[in-house]
Amino acid sequence: MDDATQADVQKRLAYIEGHLRGVSKMVEEGQYCVDVLKQTYAVRRAIEKMEAKMLSGHLHHCVVDGIERGDTGVLDELSELYELANR
Amino acid sequence: MDDATQADVQKRLAYIEGHLRGVSKMVEEGQYCVDVLKQTYAVRRAIEKMEAKMLSGHLHHCVVDGIERGDTGVLDELSELYELANR
Amino acid sequence: MDDATQADVQKRLAYIEGHLRGVSKMVEEGQYCVDVLKQTYAVRRAIEKMEAKMLSGHLHHCVVDGIERGDTGVLDELSELYELANR
Amino acid sequence: MDDATQADVQKRLAYIEGHLRGVSKMVEEGQYCVDVLKQTYAVRRAIEKMEAKMLSGHLHHCVVDGIERGDTGVLDELSELYELANR
Repeated sequence: MDDATQADVQKRLAYIEGHLRGVSKMVEEGQYCVDVLKQTYAVRRAIEKMEAKMLSGHLHHCVVDGIERGDTGVLDELSELYELANR
Repeated sequence: MDDATQADVQKRLAYIEGHLRGVSKMVEEGQYCVDVLKQTYAVRRAIEKMEAKMLSGHLHHCVVDGIERGDTGVLDELSELYELANR
Repeated sequence: MDDATQADVQKRLAYIEGHLRGVSKMVEEGQYCVDVLKQTYAVRRAIEKMEAKMLSGHLHHCVVDGIERGDTGVLDELSELYELANR
Repeated sequence: MDDATQADVQKRLAYIEGHLRGVSKMVEEGQYCVDVLKQTYAVRRAIEKMEAKMLSGHLHHCVVDGIERGDTGVLDELSELYELANR
C-alpha cells in the first residue's frame, strides 16, 4: 500500500473502530434494535468507502506494476475481489 | 432487544472488534492490499450476520408486540431497514 | 399481493424487461463493457426498488394477517428474505 | 468486449430475460410475494455473475491495453465501477 493510502486507511480504521465501540455501548444500554441496526449499516458503509480507497491505491500501484511486468495474476485477483466484495 | 439476542450480539461485536484490530495491524505492517481487502470483506460479512440475528430478535419481539398493539409504525420501520441494509 | 402493489410491480417489471433488452442490444452492437456494466447495475437497482415495494405490501398485508392469526412463520420467512436479499 | 465474453454474456442475458418473464407470470397469477421475491433475488444474482464475466474480460483486454498505452483512465473507471456495483 502506498503511504498516502496507508495513512488514509489508518485514519478511517480508527474512526470505524470508534463507531463500533459506540454500537457496543448502545447494545449494552439496551437501546432499540432498529437504532442499533441503523448504526451497523453506517459502519458497513464506512468500511466500503475505506475499501474503495484501498482498491484505488491498489489499482494505480500494484496493478499497473504487475501489468508492466507482464504479470496478469493481478487481474485474476481483481476479478476475485470483485466477486468477494459482492459476497 | 431480548436477553438472548443481546448476549449473542455482544459476543459477535467483541469478535468483530478483534477482527478489525487485526486489520489495523495488517495495514500498519504494510501487508498486501488484496489480503487486507479480503479481511475487510470478512468483517462486513460478520456484521451482516450479526444484523440478521438482531433483526430476527426484533421481528419476534418488537414487531409482534407492535402489531398486537395495532401499531403499524413497526412495519414502516422494517421497510426502511430493508432499503437501508441494501444502502 | 394486494392489487395496488401488483399493478405497481407489473409496471416496474415491464420497465426492467425493456431496460434489459436495451442491454442486450448494447452487447450485440459491441458497445464498451464499462458502459454495459453501468446499465446492468442500473437494472439491479431497479429490481431492488421493485423488491422494496413488494416487501412493503407483504409487511402490511400478509405479515399483519399472519401475526393476527398467531402464525409466526411469517417472521421466519422475513428473516430468511433479509438474509437472501443480501445473498 | 472480446468474442468469447460477448457470446457468454448474450447467453446469460437470454437466460435472465426468460427468468424475468417467469417472474412477470408469477406476479400476474397472484403468487405469494415471498416466492416472487426469492425469484427476483435469483435474477439479481444471475446478473451479478454475468457482470463478473464482463469485468473479467474487460480487465484482461481493455485494462491491459490501456495500461500498455499509458492510459490510466481505465483505472479510474475500475474504481468507479467498484463503487457503483456496491451502489
